[in-house]
Amino acid sequence: MSEKSFKTDVVIIGAGPVGLFAVFELGLLDIKCHLIDILEVVGGQCSELYPEKPIYDIPAIPVCTGQELTDKLMAQIEPFDPYFHLGQMAESISKKEDGNWVVKTDLGTVIEARVIVVAAGGGSFVPKKPPLKGLEEFEGKSVFYSVKRMEDFRDKNILIAGGGDSALDWSIFLADVASKVTLIHRRNEFRGALDSVEKVKELKDLGKINLITPAEVIGVGGKGTLELLTIQQGEETLDIKTDAFIPLFGLSPKLGPIANWGLEIEKNAIKVDNTLDYQTNVPGIYAIGDVNTYPGKLKLILSGFHEGALAARACFKLARPNEKYRFEFT
Amino acid sequence: MSEKSFKTDVVIIGAGPVGLFAVFELGLLDIKCHLIDILEVVGGQCSELYPEKPIYDIPAIPVCTGQELTDKLMAQIEPFDPYFHLGQMAESISKKEDGNWVVKTDLGTVIEARVIVVAAGGGSFVPKKPPLKGLEEFEGKSVFYSVKRMEDFRDKNILIAGGGDSALDWSIFLADVASKVTLIHRRNEFRGALDSVEKVKELKDLGKINLITPAEVIGVGGKGTLELLTIQQGEETLDIKTDAFIPLFGLSPKLGPIANWGLEIEKNAIKVDNTLDYQTNVPGIYAIGDVNTYPGKLKLILSGFHEGALAARACFKLARPNEKYRFEFT
Repeated sequence: MSEKSFKTDVVIIGAGPVGLFAVFELGLLDIKCHLIDILEVVGGQCSELYPEKPIYDIPAIPVCTGQELTDKLMAQIEPFDPYFHLGQMAESISKKEDGNWVVKTDLGTVIEARVIVVAAGGGSFVPKKPPLKGLEEFEGKSVFYSVKRMEDFRDKNILIAGGGDSALDWSIFLADVASKVTLIHRRNEFRGALDSVEKVKELKDLGKINLITPAEVIGVGGKGTLELLTIQQGEETLDIKTDAFIPLFGLSPKLGPIANWGLEIEKNAIKVDNTLDYQTNVPGIYAIGDVNTYPGKLKLILSGFHEGALAARACFKLARPNEKYRFEFT
Repeated sequence: MSEKSFKTDVVIIGAGPVGLFAVFELGLLDIKCHLIDILEVVGGQCSELYPEKPIYDIPAIPVCTGQELTDKLMAQIEPFDPYFHLGQMAESISKKEDGNWVVKTDLGTVIEARVIVVAAGGGSFVPKKPPLKGLEEFEGKSVFYSVKRMEDFRDKNILIAGGGDSALDWSIFLADVASKVTLIHRRNEFRGALDSVEKVKELKDLGKINLITPAEVIGVGGKGTLELLTIQQGEETLDIKTDAFIPLFGLSPKLGPIANWGLEIEKNAIKVDNTLDYQTNVPGIYAIGDVNTYPGKLKLILSGFHEGALAARACFKLARPNEKYRFEFT
């Protein structure tokens, strides 16, 4: 086995709270797990999207933040020593003749396991793109949906679109780096933190940010590289010369490659058998938490916890066909 | 309405962890609850049977005691102001013409509600009785399975049987009250706290407790009132003159009066529809937690929490048929 090949009992797709607690339920049954997550950190949305947001509906925890929930779960599963493959996306699966699954990620990691548990929450988060004709040909070259390295924009004439914290914050940060920053938003009011809004207005007054509201980008132009953006402001349209366009309209969840694994999908969620063990239509693949659907499904973290407990028993039977299980707690 | 008559949305039978968390899920939907519990305290078995036992399998709580779990749940539901009827047993139910249920307790409390949620865990706990012929006719007169008032035994010649803390503690306490205390246990070793065992041996040496081990009560005798108990010790049998017999062999769970409510029962548990909302075969009555059964049921506190969340939505539809619910959390 190369250093990127692994063999285990269960591969869990998604290291959010539901995936993490599944490690606990499987661990009680002496089942080993590897977890794959597209994020660089464990905890899923709780850690990435709302680490500081209070959560009130976890049983016996009157209040905790998303990050605290993640930390508590990590402490709880620590004895079971799960193996994390972070910052990568589970891309394809195949079945071996002996019945084992092989999961491959976009970074080339290969994991063989008896069972797959999909705990992918809302799936991966992809940027919301403005519906502009011809936008794709500039993507990754002069159109960007996130800022990975500020230096890439040094001395560039950039245009940022959006009304939330990302648009405000990047306008502020890049005002010191880019030769010119234009910020466009379709309303006069911003949704971001008040002090960010104040700061943007200050920079506008200093001539460091060119603020245009209410306005929208309605066209892109250029050959090979982006040259100009067409803006609509009220009745008027104007062309703005631009080196880089950064639309920051938020992220939307998307099932991603999982949608192509032969699983029965309904409304962007995986159908499972809730009458027994949350197995999908494909034997040996289970789906728990927000990623699944069944009659009466509630998208609560609690639901995913319980689904994981029930699925874990089924995983045990597949991974250890000749053993009886020993634990039944509380 | 008299002071013992109440009207509410949902009556929950059982104030253990699962009943308590159901208050939370119902409270989020603005549904009011009354709870009935046979114990004098909330928390069910967690508070009564193992307040200091560590629990490891509540999600995101790596370890807590039964009492801590109860305390956390009470803090979580405090905003919803549940009404507790403790120290009484839900005895009978009937249905009004308008579809409301009326629940009566053995203390005469009457509660009218739209929905009943049974969260009674293992049911009520009843004393384990020794299999002695004719024992029943003395019960409550000279045979007792618990000590309610020590004064009832003043200057009596009593015999206590058992090897746990209850038998040890009551022998110690009653040695000061009764004219004579005989303690019988079928082994030489006791299961109770070490210092209680020491104390009993001290009192034996002082002549205040008549300790007979290993021995068993094999017969009761008397006309109308108990007169003597027959004891077997090894090959020998002997008769002991006794005014009161207190067998303390522990408690075992029993469904109790709930078994007579017309609910479908299987292996001492209530069958529910796990494919949707944990309703029993009787519309308007739900069962959650250890008291229910369905294919693949796990007797985990977590299971009861999730079952309560799903049942709560169904309760809402019954209690508020004309409203849409507003909450969906995490």
